[in-house]
Amino acid sequence: MSYRIDLNSDIGESFGAYVIGQDQAVLSQITSANIACGYHAGDPNVMRRTVLAALERGVGLGAHPGLPDLVGFGRRNMAISTEDAYTMTLYQVGALAAIAKAEGGQLQHVKPHGALFNMAAQDGRLAQGIAEAVVAVDDQLVLFGLAGSELVKAGRGVGLKVAEEVFADRTYQPDGSLTPRTQPEAVIRDSKEAVSRVIHMVKEGKTMAVDGTLIDLNADTVCVHGDHPEALSFVHQLREAFTAEGITVKRVSER
Amino acid sequence: MSYRIDLNSDIGESFGAYVIGQDQAVLSQITSANIACGYHAGDPNVMRRTVLAALERGVGLGAHPGLPDLVGFGRRNMAISTEDAYTMTLYQVGALAAIAKAEGGQLQHVKPHGALFNMAAQDGRLAQGIAEAVVAVDDQLVLFGLAGSELVKAGRGVGLKVAEEVFADRTYQPDGSLTPRTQPEAVIRDSKEAVSRVIHMVKEGKTMAVDGTLIDLNADTVCVHGDHPEALSFVHQLREAFTAEGITVKRVSER
Amino acid sequence: MSYRIDLNSDIGESFGAYVIGQDQAVLSQITSANIACGYHAGDPNVMRRTVLAALERGVGLGAHPGLPDLVGFGRRNMAISTEDAYTMTLYQVGALAAIAKAEGGQLQHVKPHGALFNMAAQDGRLAQGIAEAVVAVDDQLVLFGLAGSELVKAGRGVGLKVAEEVFADRTYQPDGSLTPRTQPEAVIRDSKEAVSRVIHMVKEGKTMAVDGTLIDLNADTVCVHGDHPEALSFVHQLREAFTAEGITVKRVSER
Amino acid sequence: MSYRIDLNSDIGESFGAYVIGQDQAVLSQITSANIACGYHAGDPNVMRRTVLAALERGVGLGAHPGLPDLVGFGRRNMAISTEDAYTMTLYQVGALAAIAKAEGGQLQHVKPHGALFNMAAQDGRLAQGIAEAVVAVDDQLVLFGLAGSELVKAGRGVGLKVAEEVFADRTYQPDGSLTPRTQPEAVIRDSKEAVSRVIHMVKEGKTMAVDGTLIDLNADTVCVHGDHPEALSFVHQLREAFTAEGITVKRVSER
Repeated sequence: MSYRIDLNSDIGESFGAYVIGQDQAVLSQITSANIACGYHAGDPNVMRRTVLAALERGVGLGAHPGLPDLVGFGRRNMAISTEDAYTMTLYQVGALAAIAKAEGGQLQHVKPHGALFNMAAQDGRLAQGIAEAVVAVDDQLVLFGLAGSELVKAGRGVGLKVAEEVFADRTYQPDGSLTPRTQPEAVIRDSKEAVSRVIHMVKEGKTMAVDGTLIDLNADTVCVHGDHPEALSFVHQLREAFTAEGITVKRVSER
Repeated sequence: MSYRIDLNSDIGESFGAYVIGQDQAVLSQITSANIACGYHAGDPNVMRRTVLAALERGVGLGAHPGLPDLVGFGRRNMAISTEDAYTMTLYQVGALAAIAKAEGGQLQHVKPHGALFNMAAQDGRLAQGIAEAVVAVDDQLVLFGLAGSELVKAGRGVGLKVAEEVFADRTYQPDGSLTPRTQPEAVIRDSKEAVSRVIHMVKEGKTMAVDGTLIDLNADTVCVHGDHPEALSFVHQLREAFTAEGITVKRVSER
Repeated sequence: MSYRIDLNSDIGESFGAYVIGQDQAVLSQITSANIACGYHAGDPNVMRRTVLAALERGVGLGAHPGLPDLVGFGRRNMAISTEDAYTMTLYQVGALAAIAKAEGGQLQHVKPHGALFNMAAQDGRLAQGIAEAVVAVDDQLVLFGLAGSELVKAGRGVGLKVAEEVFADRTYQPDGSLTPRTQPEAVIRDSKEAVSRVIHMVKEGKTMAVDGTLIDLNADTVCVHGDHPEALSFVHQLREAFTAEGITVKRVSER
Repeated sequence: MSYRIDLNSDIGESFGAYVIGQDQAVLSQITSANIACGYHAGDPNVMRRTVLAALERGVGLGAHPGLPDLVGFGRRNMAISTEDAYTMTLYQVGALAAIAKAEGGQLQHVKPHGALFNMAAQDGRLAQGIAEAVVAVDDQLVLFGLAGSELVKAGRGVGLKVAEEVFADRTYQPDGSLTPRTQPEAVIRDSKEAVSRVIHMVKEGKTMAVDGTLIDLNADTVCVHGDHPEALSFVHQLREAFTAEGITVKRVSER
C-alpha cells in the first residue's frame, strides 16, 4: 500500500514596496503554491515573480483568490453574493492564469484565501459560485477545500478534481469541523503530536475529534506556513516523518 | 475594389452602484467592444454582464486595460515602468479572457485605455511591454493602437495582427500625430466634414493634415462614443455614409 | 406645543467620472446632508463640491463614514473590529471636517452609512467605537442613529447629542427594529400612509408595530432619498404635511 | 551665535498586515515625524498607533500626504490637477489631524511624500494647491519643502511658516536643484563627507554645488531614513557631529 500527500502554502503575498513571507525558503519545501491574485495581497509584478520562482522549483501553481480587502488581508468576512463569488474567482484566476501562461507555466489548482475559504467551507451557495467559476475557466484545475466542506462537495458536484485539505496543528469537532480558535483546545502546540496526527490522517483517513470519537477525513494536502522560522522547521519535521512512514510528498497533479 | 472598416467603442465602464454609458445602444452600432477590466473602470460583475451583452449581439470582445487609477478614470498619465505595463496588461487581459471563456466567448482584441493608450502611442518601451503581454497571453489577439503609433509598431514587431485606429472628429499634424486638444483646430465639430474625412481615410489611406499636406494613415478601425445622444446619432450618420460608399462595416477578426 | 423635525439625505456619492444622485434637487429639500467620505463613495473633489453646495443652501454638513468597500457601495457587512470602526470613523470624519473648514463650514453631524449603520444599530461594541471616535473629533457633533438602536445608546453614553432617525416607508417590529426587507409587509408603498405614520411618530413619539401594538419611538430626523423622481415628490408631500400639521422642519443643530 | 536643526523622517508606512520600517528606532532619533496618511501607505489603525508612538517620545506630528498609488508607494509621478492636489491634501491632512486630536495630540507640520513632493518642488501650480490646502486646514502648520523649491515659495506666499529641507547624502546643481540620481555624482556615499556638508549648510547657509560654486541654501530640517541599519547609524553620526559643533537638534515648532 502506498501513500501520498501534497504540501501547500500561501505565497506571493508581497505588495508593491511591502515584502512579506519567506517565499524562497517555503518554495523549497512545498509541492503546491497558493499565489495571491491582487485582491487581498499580491500585485501583478509580485505575481509574475512568484510564478517564475515556483516554476524554477517545479512547484504546482495555484491561484489563491481572496476578498477585495487589501487592508484586512482578506481575513474579514464580507457579505458577498453568489454572483460576486463567481465573478471575483473568474477574475483573479484568469489574471494569474495569463501571467502563468506568459511565463511558460500553467495553473494546477485553485484555493480560496482566508475569509473566502472559511465562508465557502460552510456556505453552499458561495461554494457553488466558486466551483462553477473554476470549472468554467479550466476543468482540469484541482479545487482545494477544507476536508469534508461545502467547497469540496461543490467542486465534486461540478466535476472538478478536488484536494481535501487537513490542518496539522488544529483539532477537530465530532462533525468534522475545526475547533474554533476561541476554544483553548483549538490549537495543537506540540509539534510531535501534530506530526503523528497528520500521519494518522494520511494512512487511515481518520482523525480523533476532541471528544475522542474517530471521524473520517480525507487528507490530500496539508497547509503549511512559512511566515516564521518555527513554521519552516515544522515543515522539515513533517517531511522527515513522511519519508520515515513511506508517505510520498508530491503535488496533487502528479501521477 | 472593396473596402472595410471596424467600429470600436469603450463599454463596460460601470462600477458597482455606478452606471455610466449607454452600453446597449452602443453595442447595436459597433463591431468591436473595448471592455474595461477593473483598473480604471469596470468590476467583475460588470465585466461579465458586458461580455454577455456583447456576445448576444455578435460584437467582438476586446480587453481595455487601463492604469490603476479608478478615481481618475485612467486618464491621468502615470510614470509606470515597462515591467508594470507588461504585468498590468497580462493581469487585466487574463481576467477578462477568463470571464469571456466562462460565458462561452473568446477575446478578439486588446486596446489600452486613456492615458495608457496615449503614453503607449509615443513611448516605445511601454508599447513594447504591452505588445509582449498581449502576444504572451494569446498570439491570435489583435492589438488596437493609434494609426502610425509606437504601439502599432511594437505590435507588428512581436508578430501580432494590429488594427490602426483613426479619429473621425480630430485633426492631424503633418507628422501623423493628433493635434493637441489645447489647440483650437483640434476638434472637428461639423459632423458632415468628420464623416467625409473618415471616408477619405478608409478609401485612400490618407488624410489632410492641418497644414494642408496629405499624410498616409491606415484606417482599420474608428473609435466612436456612446456617452451622449449626439454621439450615437453621429455613429448612425457614419454607418449610412459607409453603406452609400460601399464600405463594409465588420469586425477586425471577421473574414 | 410645538413640533420639529429634521430631514436628512445621503449626498455627495459621486466618484471621479461617475455621477450618481440628484444632489442639487435634494439639497433644496433637506436640512441635514450626509456627505460620503471616500470609503464607500465620494472622492476629495466631490466632497469639496458637495460641501460648497450644501453651504450655499444652509444645509447642515454631516460626515457619512462607510466601510472600505467602494465596489459594494458600503452595503455589504464586513467583520471589522472595534478598533477598525473607531479609526475609520476618525479618518473619514477628519477628512471631511478639514474640507468643510477650508471652505468656510463646520460639521454638524455624523451618520454612518449602509452596512456600517446597520451593524452599529445592533452591535454595541461597534457602536461604541464609532461614538468614541465622534466625540474625540468634536464633542459638539450630533450623532445620527436608528431610533432606539445601540448606536443611539452609545452616543448618549459618551455624552454626544444624538438624533434618532425614523423611516417613513418602513414598518416596525414590536421590539422597535425594522421589519426585514425579506418580509412582504416591510415596505409601505402608499405615500399617504407613509406620511401619516411619520406625522404620528413626530407628534406622539409612537408608532404602530406590525402586530398592532404601539411602540415608543423618538423621531428627531427622517431619512429621505433623492435617487429617483418619486422619491423627491414624496419629500414634497412630506414637507407639505409637516406644514399643515404645524411641524417645523429645521436642522438638528438649529435652535 | 546659536544654530539649530530639525531631523525629520517618514514613518507609519505599514499597511494592514504589512510591516515596513523600524519606526520605534527612528522615533528615538528624530524631532519631526512624517506620518503616512493612507494614500501611498499607512491605514487608519497604523496612523493611530504611529501618532501614539510619536506623542510618547515628544516627536512633532506631521502629515505626509501622497499620491493615491498604494502599489507604487506614491513614488510614480501622476498628472494630477491643481484641484486634485488641493483636495487630496485637505483630505489626508484632515484625516491625520482628527486621529492626532483624538489621541491628545496636534499636528505640527505637513510634508508631501515622494512623487508629490518632487512634483511640487518644480510645479508652482501644484505647490500652490498644496500650500492653500495646508493654510486652510490650520494656518499654524509648518510646511516642509525642498530648500529653495516652488513649494517653499508657495508656502511663504500663503503666509505659512516653512521649513526648508536639505539632503545629507545628495549633491546639488548650481541652480540649487538636486543632481538627478541618474548621474554618477548624485549620491554622497562617504558618511563623513555627508556629515560635514550638512554642518556647513546649517552654519553657513551655503553648500558647494557639483561645479564648485557656492550656492545659498537654507537648512531648517534634514531628512533621514530608518529603513536599514546603516541609515540609523548615519543618524547617530549626524547627531554626534551636531552636538560637537554646537548645533541644537530640536523640532521646528519648538522655541
